Amino acid sequence: MTTHDFYRGRRVMITGGLGFIGSNLAHRLTDLGADVLLVDSLIPDYGGNLHNIAGIEDRVRVNVADVRQASTMNYLVQGRDVIFNLAGQVSHIDSMRDPHTDLEINCRSQLTLLEACRHYNPSAKVVYASTRQIYGRPDALPVTERHLVRPTDVNGINKAAGEYYHLVYNNVFGVRACALRLTNIYGPRQLLKHNRQGFIGWFIRLVLEDQEIQVFGDGSQIRDFVYVDDAAEAFLLAGATDAVNGEVFNVGGDEHVAHRDLVELLVRTAMSGRYRFVEWPAEKKVIDIGSFYADSSLFKSRTGWQPKVSLADGLRRTLDYYRPRMAHYV
Amino acid sequence: MTTHDFYRGRRVMITGGLGFIGSNLAHRLTDLGADVLLVDSLIPDYGGNLHNIAGIEDRVRVNVADVRQASTMNYLVQGRDVIFNLAGQVSHIDSMRDPHTDLEINCRSQLTLLEACRHYNPSAKVVYASTRQIYGRPDALPVTERHLVRPTDVNGINKAAGEYYHLVYNNVFGVRACALRLTNIYGPRQLLKHNRQGFIGWFIRLVLEDQEIQVFGDGSQIRDFVYVDDAAEAFLLAGATDAVNGEVFNVGGDEHVAHRDLVELLVRTAMSGRYRFVEWPAEKKVIDIGSFYADSSLFKSRTGWQPKVSLADGLRRTLDYYRPRMAHYV
Repeated sequence: MTTHDFYRGRRVMITGGLGFIGSNLAHRLTDLGADVLLVDSLIPDYGGNLHNIAGIEDRVRVNVADVRQASTMNYLVQGRDVIFNLAGQVSHIDSMRDPHTDLEINCRSQLTLLEACRHYNPSAKVVYASTRQIYGRPDALPVTERHLVRPTDVNGINKAAGEYYHLVYNNVFGVRACALRLTNIYGPRQLLKHNRQGFIGWFIRLVLEDQEIQVFGDGSQIRDFVYVDDAAEAFLLAGATDAVNGEVFNVGGDEHVAHRDLVELLVRTAMSGRYRFVEWPAEKKVIDIGSFYADSSLFKSRTGWQPKVSLADGLRRTLDYYRPRMAHYV
Repeated sequence: MTTHDFYRGRRVMITGGLGFIGSNLAHRLTDLGADVLLVDSLIPDYGGNLHNIAGIEDRVRVNVADVRQASTMNYLVQGRDVIFNLAGQVSHIDSMRDPHTDLEINCRSQLTLLEACRHYNPSAKVVYASTRQIYGRPDALPVTERHLVRPTDVNGINKAAGEYYHLVYNNVFGVRACALRLTNIYGPRQLLKHNRQGFIGWFIRLVLEDQEIQVFGDGSQIRDFVYVDDAAEAFLLAGATDAVNGEVFNVGGDEHVAHRDLVELLVRTAMSGRYRFVEWPAEKKVIDIGSFYADSSLFKSRTGWQPKVSLADGLRRTLDYYRPRMAHYV
């Protein structure tokens, strides 16, 4: 059975299903013939957007609910074969302003979901969306899963705890689970409304509105990028194999790109917008982690995953997606 | 100024101040002339015990309060120079039965205390009691601070998150903080009422009651042990120096002792009790971490700390403490 056959008729649930990665995954899963339940709180500013399921709205079931609500989660997990657990408070800035809300969503709610599985659906497979942010400033590049977890903000800490819970529930309670540490994901259906959820969505908005991007310092910090279809494929593979259970995996891109080169490529591809180098703001400099790119070879070897969309192609597709749809995203 | 001069007249607060390590620290601090506020919830079964401050009750202030109560903590932290943050839910077993309570106390309340400091006492110094449990099963011995954090239960995860919060508040908000990863602490004033807070207190009770200790398997697993006075000294040193801020440190003992040798020494010292080897219970075997002992050289080199009480001497002192006081501990 191929991975794709695996999902035909499979009962799948996606928390954060109307968000960026969740909705792209939903599009893939409906194509594959899965029975898809999308759970999303639709909290303004968090990333959930009903427009993200335009075209598949009749082929998925949407249940507006908050992962903090234990009794609701106890009900919704029942009978689901695979749970893609992507709901989260994504903003690092917000996590430092209001750390308790970040804890409730990224930490406590993960425990709530796993307790729901333990008691009401212990045979579920759970794939958790973690983040490279939990590593903090890397000691060496590329960063492997052997690198210390050393988060630099409250969001990173709570995401790390959420990840650990999944592993413990796998190891102790037999709720099969793994975690994917995503690097910088970009593509269609990402939130563009504000700049508190990472830089790449915001940069895309700025060039589409023909505005100026500010690049801090000399823009030499390196990142790796993953087009959202490749990220969705990583979730599909992880959900379909037990060879990943109880482990964490980096999921990053093969191209390592300096900020200034990303911005230059973006402006060139869009044929709009511009950029300018500015001094590092002091409050951002203090929490900057320098260059980061991940070694994803463990996940590749375990699942056969391989990112297929180049940064140039991905940016072009992304811009093409948003241009006629900006009204739904700003 | 010596470390000990540092505490004369110093305004100190200890969360979990009626507990095992907290109360021993309180005894030391009153001897050093500090102004000591003990905050403790006195939740039954957690470890807080008013008898633990017998002899110093007129020289400390006790405030019964729960660290989960934000407004109370906002008030109590004010004006305190050093906060020894030891309050916690200590039982690993309880954390797996009721993970949300463990999260509230060991994870959320740490954020509450640090937010209290950030907003009401940003010049406080905070020393957090972490645990070697966050390492899980070690890859190699001795375990240094470079070892991956890989907790094997919910308690370990929440303790890890609590530790990370302290580092982030140090680095981002300037609330000076550090964390001590304690190994197996033993000595006077430890809870003996039940066996859900680790084995050593329970073993001490069994020999004092002339009962049988069950040693799992062949008892070859190794641990290191720290007498509580040495642990208290580690807290005093960490609280008095800024050279530890923003870092985590192992605090473990120099003697590495197999379970069977510990038990043999304990029975011999007590001249009561006995022991028997039994099969590993399946549910305990699955979460066993094998042998563990820590490399504490980083903390020693940074602070000059050196454990002074041998295991043989410490066990003797511990038994001498409890014998006339058993009624207060069982």
